Amino acid sequence: MKQYQSKVFEEAVDAFARLPGIGRRTALRMVLAVLKRPAEDAERFGQAVIRLRKEIGYCVKCHNISDQSTCGICADTRRDASLVCVVEDIRDVIAIENTGQYRGLFHVLGGIINPMEGISPSQLNVQSLVDKVAAGRVKEVIMALPATMEGDTTVYYLFKKLRELGVRFSVIARGIAIGGELEYADEVTLGRSIVNRTPYDHPLVK
Amino acid sequence: MKQYQSKVFEEAVDAFARLPGIGRRTALRMVLAVLKRPAEDAERFGQAVIRLRKEIGYCVKCHNISDQSTCGICADTRRDASLVCVVEDIRDVIAIENTGQYRGLFHVLGGIINPMEGISPSQLNVQSLVDKVAAGRVKEVIMALPATMEGDTTVYYLFKKLRELGVRFSVIARGIAIGGELEYADEVTLGRSIVNRTPYDHPLVK
Repeated sequence: MKQYQSKVFEEAVDAFARLPGIGRRTALRMVLAVLKRPAEDAERFGQAVIRLRKEIGYCVKCHNISDQSTCGICADTRRDASLVCVVEDIRDVIAIENTGQYRGLFHVLGGIINPMEGISPSQLNVQSLVDKVAAGRVKEVIMALPATMEGDTTVYYLFKKLRELGVRFSVIARGIAIGGELEYADEVTLGRSIVNRTPYDHPLVK
Repeated sequence: MKQYQSKVFEEAVDAFARLPGIGRRTALRMVLAVLKRPAEDAERFGQAVIRLRKEIGYCVKCHNISDQSTCGICADTRRDASLVCVVEDIRDVIAIENTGQYRGLFHVLGGIINPMEGISPSQLNVQSLVDKVAAGRVKEVIMALPATMEGDTTVYYLFKKLRELGVRFSVIARGIAIGGELEYADEVTLGRSIVNRTPYDHPLVK
């Protein structure tokens, strides 16, 4: 407050500095950028933040963000409701949607099991997944979680929860990226890409 | 709009992505962070941005940011009004104020001369500096501009503008940082630090 000679200025710097990965120096740069632009821009920015938190909720079915009670993906009857892809958060939904390769539904866990950070299954959207599978319409659950210890723990936890329900349980393929050089790949990924090799498939070969 | 299934969400991502140095991926991360926090936080953030642009103006004397017509520094009668430190922008005022070593006033140019980016002297707060010096109360003008070609050009331009007004004209010292190792210093800085050496001064030596 004293530092910048203005309470309003200080509050704005504080607000930006609370964003993830933003220190006070970067926050200051952002505040100065807002000050340099037309007043309508700042008004629109401020309103966008306020409306965001007020109007955006979560889909009651898949926990994706949505401004309706059911998100656009769950509401789309052309999608395959027998397929459910389980992801950590909304960013993963966006990433998978952007591939254009997936026509099933999603289930957003809202995190992964992480004892070090105190995140237990009870804090995640696990029960609604179990209920969804138990309802009987889902044929396959695809795990698209990070390839970390926490991700693997979560996959194993969900596997134990879901296996008695008789649903197919799969994980997304791990391997060398398309265009990736073998010599730069890490050993674990390269090793797994050999173990999980897939049959050669070419449109001209029968 | 289509990509995120929600116009409100998309608008918020757009707003963050317009900040300096923020791409769409980081903007998305920020929006999700805002969504995870309490609604009051988002409300306060939004209001802070709106109020910032509405209530903050510039000091009529030095062009520093201020919520009054005259900023706290210019209004402080204990400060030495015969000294004016010329800086590029408000961040420099904050940096110099934080040293606690300067008791004069400031003059914020609002940029430096940069023909490549089309910034000419007419877009900077030059005339108000000339008027201030011409008024006769200022004894010394200290240039605290970046040590770049653009900074040097601006210093030279202002020197030509101000020299006939009979004011002392100085630039901040350039040299090896305190605690800096000589072997890691660049040659230009090291060279200038030798040319601009200062007489040895020790409290126990007369």
